[in-house]
Amino acid sequence: MTRPESRTVSGMRPTGPLHLGHYFGVLKNWVEMQHEMEAYFFVADWHALTSDFAEPSRIKEFVPELVKDWVAAGLDPEKCVIFQQSQVKEHAELHLILSMITPVSWLERNPTYKEQQQEITTKDLGNYGFLGYPVLMASDILIYRPKWVPVGQDQLPHLELTREIGRRFNHFYGDFFPEPEARLTPAAKCPGLDGRKMSKSYGNGIYLRDTIEEVAPKVRGMFTDPARLRKSDPGNPDVCNLFPYHVLMTDAEKQAEIREGCTSAKLGCVDCKKMFLESLARFFEPLHERRRVLDADPERVRAILEDGNTRARREAAATMDGVRSRIHF
Amino acid sequence: MTRPESRTVSGMRPTGPLHLGHYFGVLKNWVEMQHEMEAYFFVADWHALTSDFAEPSRIKEFVPELVKDWVAAGLDPEKCVIFQQSQVKEHAELHLILSMITPVSWLERNPTYKEQQQEITTKDLGNYGFLGYPVLMASDILIYRPKWVPVGQDQLPHLELTREIGRRFNHFYGDFFPEPEARLTPAAKCPGLDGRKMSKSYGNGIYLRDTIEEVAPKVRGMFTDPARLRKSDPGNPDVCNLFPYHVLMTDAEKQAEIREGCTSAKLGCVDCKKMFLESLARFFEPLHERRRVLDADPERVRAILEDGNTRARREAAATMDGVRSRIHF
Ligand code: SF4
Ligand code: SF4
Repeated sequence: MTRPESRTVSGMRPTGPLHLGHYFGVLKNWVEMQHEMEAYFFVADWHALTSDFAEPSRIKEFVPELVKDWVAAGLDPEKCVIFQQSQVKEHAELHLILSMITPVSWLERNPTYKEQQQEITTKDLGNYGFLGYPVLMASDILIYRPKWVPVGQDQLPHLELTREIGRRFNHFYGDFFPEPEARLTPAAKCPGLDGRKMSKSYGNGIYLRDTIEEVAPKVRGMFTDPARLRKSDPGNPDVCNLFPYHVLMTDAEKQAEIREGCTSAKLGCVDCKKMFLESLARFFEPLHERRRVLDADPERVRAILEDGNTRARREAAATMDGVRSRIHF
Repeated sequence: MTRPESRTVSGMRPTGPLHLGHYFGVLKNWVEMQHEMEAYFFVADWHALTSDFAEPSRIKEFVPELVKDWVAAGLDPEKCVIFQQSQVKEHAELHLILSMITPVSWLERNPTYKEQQQEITTKDLGNYGFLGYPVLMASDILIYRPKWVPVGQDQLPHLELTREIGRRFNHFYGDFFPEPEARLTPAAKCPGLDGRKMSKSYGNGIYLRDTIEEVAPKVRGMFTDPARLRKSDPGNPDVCNLFPYHVLMTDAEKQAEIREGCTSAKLGCVDCKKMFLESLARFFEPLHERRRVLDADPERVRAILEDGNTRARREAAATMDGVRSRIHF
């Protein structure tokens, strides 16, 4: 079994189209990592079942859409392994084995578990699989024995649980799983168009598959600095809801000009929004071009997944051989 | 997918050699069922991990031993499917899916869970997989879509949980799993040699692989009717620890003679024990003969399992195709 010094694994649930928040919060980091190390990225369809078990039909439809979003965003199937979790059955096998050694108390004290149970009242989250999703996550990660796992600051407790489960396996059965380390995604401020968190449920997102024509009216309607009533009032980019987008998508020199123009009341919000739409168009261009290529070849996404599934399965099967021999199975 | 009107599934953990209690409590029933219906019997090695995760090395060694005990007891690999749970990965996949729809509260109120947690203090039973073993059991059963499940009276709550999990799947995803019904194993009184429950941990068992020479001294040392001090005292078979064995293994006519001889003080315990050893020898003969055949062909057990695994996999895979299509995966 190969054990590369540098490998990474991560996944995303197929629950809807990706927006700029996903791009700057996760994908941008993935795209960089694929050039630095062996990288496995999976569509977490089994995970999507933990919360969407009652209506799973949409999961299927989102699987190819997610892959399209990824490839459009710059994941290169020649550089990284793009696969579908449920097509690599070894995840389910490792999940079963790790479930035997994971204390329920570890899962109950998982902060996300408690939080979601309290906050989400529209779905039944009292199922065994929901309690145990960190066990599934640990399996998804450990089965590729990675050195790095890209996570945001708020996901550090999950990664720690994965590490603890791996350590517990090693404790019972001998050293086998390396401890994956956090590769922190740089924090990126990407609010929704209405200033709240960018989220599907608020309908305030800019989606990777949106056209400029779709986005433009929404941007024109955005609130900016609430204290700036007229163009002749100086503005404050630091309280403006649009400025963070410039930070993400406009080059540094122009950003400085905008700040200067805004605070000196030389630049109006209407022009500032036009400049943002230009930046967005530049940002979108390669993404949309890659998406056009995918759309022109309806077999392509299927082929990417099939190839990725095969490559992932090979590695997962090798790990499972090791696991089975450790537990004398 | 075939859906036979009459099919059964059951399993046993590979945790040690089988004794008469297992034979009369479970196996005898299995042997009969294989002649009446399509039957799947599995070595529950993943289940053994729920309690023996800390020392799994013995599980492996007991797998072929369990198959030997089964075949010796009369399970015929031509008549039924004998297989190893962990070799049919579809069980792990269905387990993962059913975990998503099984309420934790159903598992917590499972009486065996509470009991074992209170009673067994030598093992750590606080793991996620121990809480969820009824989910694994439901998967083991439902994946073969059986009509009958052989259970003892005390296991009825487990079967009910399996039925509830199947119903819940049907409720979310449409009618798919038939509800398996209990095929009650007739109660058989089979105490240990010391009068306590026959159990490996008490060292009071008669094992299917024992020879008469090994059993004889233990039988001679058995307590009988404690009030019968001399042969000339009449005895009472109903309080005697040996008599239940006659009920199980001696023909009815002779049983009546023994009862009459005992209560009239014509038959002494020494002779009564000799008669039991004769019955036991007759009972053992076909079992030991079948074991000799197996022992003469070291490849045989492996071949039985390989064939059974293939047949079980075929059926489990067909069920999983149906499950995946129901959940739109
Ligand atoms: S000019 Fe630009 S940065 Fe300044 S308040 Fe208007 S939109 Fe915001
Ligand atoms: S004669 Fe047989 S049945 Fe009667 S007490 Fe002795 S051992 Fe028991």
